[in-house]
Amino acid sequence: MYRVIELLAVVSSAFYGVLLARRHHMDFVGVFCLALVVAFGGGTLRDLFLDRHPLFWIREEHYPVIVFVIALISSVLKTVPVYLERYLSIPDALGLGLFSVAGTSAAIDEGTSWFVASLLGTVTGTFGGVMGDVICNRVPSLFRPAPLFATCSFVGSWIYILMRSVPSIEAFAAPVAIAFIVAFRLISIRFHLYLPHVGDEVSDLGQID
Amino acid sequence: MYRVIELLAVVSSAFYGVLLARRHHMDFVGVFCLALVVAFGGGTLRDLFLDRHPLFWIREEHYPVIVFVIALISSVLKTVPVYLERYLSIPDALGLGLFSVAGTSAAIDEGTSWFVASLLGTVTGTFGGVMGDVICNRVPSLFRPAPLFATCSFVGSWIYILMRSVPSIEAFAAPVAIAFIVAFRLISIRFHLYLPHVGDEVSDLGQID
Amino acid sequence: MYRVIELLAVVSSAFYGVLLARRHHMDFVGVFCLALVVAFGGGTLRDLFLDRHPLFWIREEHYPVIVFVIALISSVLKTVPVYLERYLSIPDALGLGLFSVAGTSAAIDEGTSWFVASLLGTVTGTFGGVMGDVICNRVPSLFRPAPLFATCSFVGSWIYILMRSVPSIEAFAAPVAIAFIVAFRLISIRFHLYLPHVGDEVSDLGQID
Repeated sequence: MYRVIELLAVVSSAFYGVLLARRHHMDFVGVFCLALVVAFGGGTLRDLFLDRHPLFWIREEHYPVIVFVIALISSVLKTVPVYLERYLSIPDALGLGLFSVAGTSAAIDEGTSWFVASLLGTVTGTFGGVMGDVICNRVPSLFRPAPLFATCSFVGSWIYILMRSVPSIEAFAAPVAIAFIVAFRLISIRFHLYLPHVGDEVSDLGQID
Repeated sequence: MYRVIELLAVVSSAFYGVLLARRHHMDFVGVFCLALVVAFGGGTLRDLFLDRHPLFWIREEHYPVIVFVIALISSVLKTVPVYLERYLSIPDALGLGLFSVAGTSAAIDEGTSWFVASLLGTVTGTFGGVMGDVICNRVPSLFRPAPLFATCSFVGSWIYILMRSVPSIEAFAAPVAIAFIVAFRLISIRFHLYLPHVGDEVSDLGQID
Repeated sequence: MYRVIELLAVVSSAFYGVLLARRHHMDFVGVFCLALVVAFGGGTLRDLFLDRHPLFWIREEHYPVIVFVIALISSVLKTVPVYLERYLSIPDALGLGLFSVAGTSAAIDEGTSWFVASLLGTVTGTFGGVMGDVICNRVPSLFRPAPLFATCSFVGSWIYILMRSVPSIEAFAAPVAIAFIVAFRLISIRFHLYLPHVGDEVSDLGQID
């Protein structure tokens, strides 16, 4: 079950990377690299921060091959990702849920504090997209007012952490947290829930080092 | 004493991150993430390059909480960071001094060459801001003509390295180097000391891979 | 022989970094940092991904010094890098060949799959330039239609992997793969070989997280 969700998460992230690359008129190298970055970026940061080796995409060696095939199909059959785009929000929300809980769980296993674990869960779920945006010269959409994404991941990570600390309900921690994140994300998209931007009544900074 | 300076360094870096995020109209997620990146980015790079684990902000687990509180206060009381901005140059210079010397010291302890140690000291002191700028789509101000910042860190790192290698004055290496960096930085701001930019009499490069 | 090629690779990458920094009107700090990033970025990523420590530029401690001297000379004698630019394509192609094969070889030694090894070879050969572009706010030229670069590296990495797996020709794997990459790269420049960009018949994505 988890394997299927994780696979869906990798596939849907890779398609987001492909779509992002296309918007910036990249060639196949760019499409493939962006698909890799969006699909594996968050998990790679988590593994590096926690010193977990081999990295998950080096260990699960079929994942990069899957991303390669997705990039190839998308470059040959150019309408495939456009057609799939409308169906991406559900696997994408599933991926957010699974990656967030997996990241939080890995961090707790390595003995970090709860707060750090919730941050690493959120990084795992969301930073692939942040890196893709930075490479494409976009201010990350994650950091701008838009339907809640990191917030779903962060709150869900805390649900997982708290439930996991209570022995009697520990076993339900992961499925409940994943279901919460998926539902919260889909509701945010449906009802346009977002955080307001933080004022711009700021003097010019001159130099920020 | 050092704990207090380090805390001031984290706090002032976090406020820089908050101000940077605001200028780009980010929401709370962006404010918090940029505060984290600016406060912890340089030290994280150093720890990854030197394979030091757990990373300093995972070990000192109250630091991310402090940054979270700063981001929260800044988002609710929107004028706080603007008001504090004018007072940031002194803790910022203190942070540059402490982070630079701490980074250099860590590198030497890991057995790197002196030159590499001075580079890692400078990275620790300055690269949080570089990463913040890159995320916000700004060419890093560190790399442009502006009051000396990396230069103070680099020269101070060498003062620390050289003094540390002389047994009779070894004990004074850290305080002298930190004081030098702080003074050099404040003087650079006060008297507008900067490095000239390096000519633009360059033909168009075509492709740079 | 390999030492000479590796040195040429570091030197030519550093000059690319210098030229890139100049186009963006950076000061000496920027010139030096970009030269470091372009020369060491790809290899650093590979070493971090594979958990190889000390990083190659920390172990080969004269490399950062060489980059420093190049940045210094380029800043004092401003016409040197412009003059050298026309001669850079050959050492640059040599560097691509050597870094790619060295990266692939290191990955296989660490026990990765062949596909991951070919990716890490390509990352080693090409991602210094990608990082330099991202820092300078350019969409990486590697990802755009331009004379083949990553493709040469990727194909050459596979030649190395396949030849290495056949005992009787194992000894020739590295020189043949390097020669192939160099020749393929120079031919791509000469005959303007490139991959087409992947269509932009894509609807606006709204938010990509």
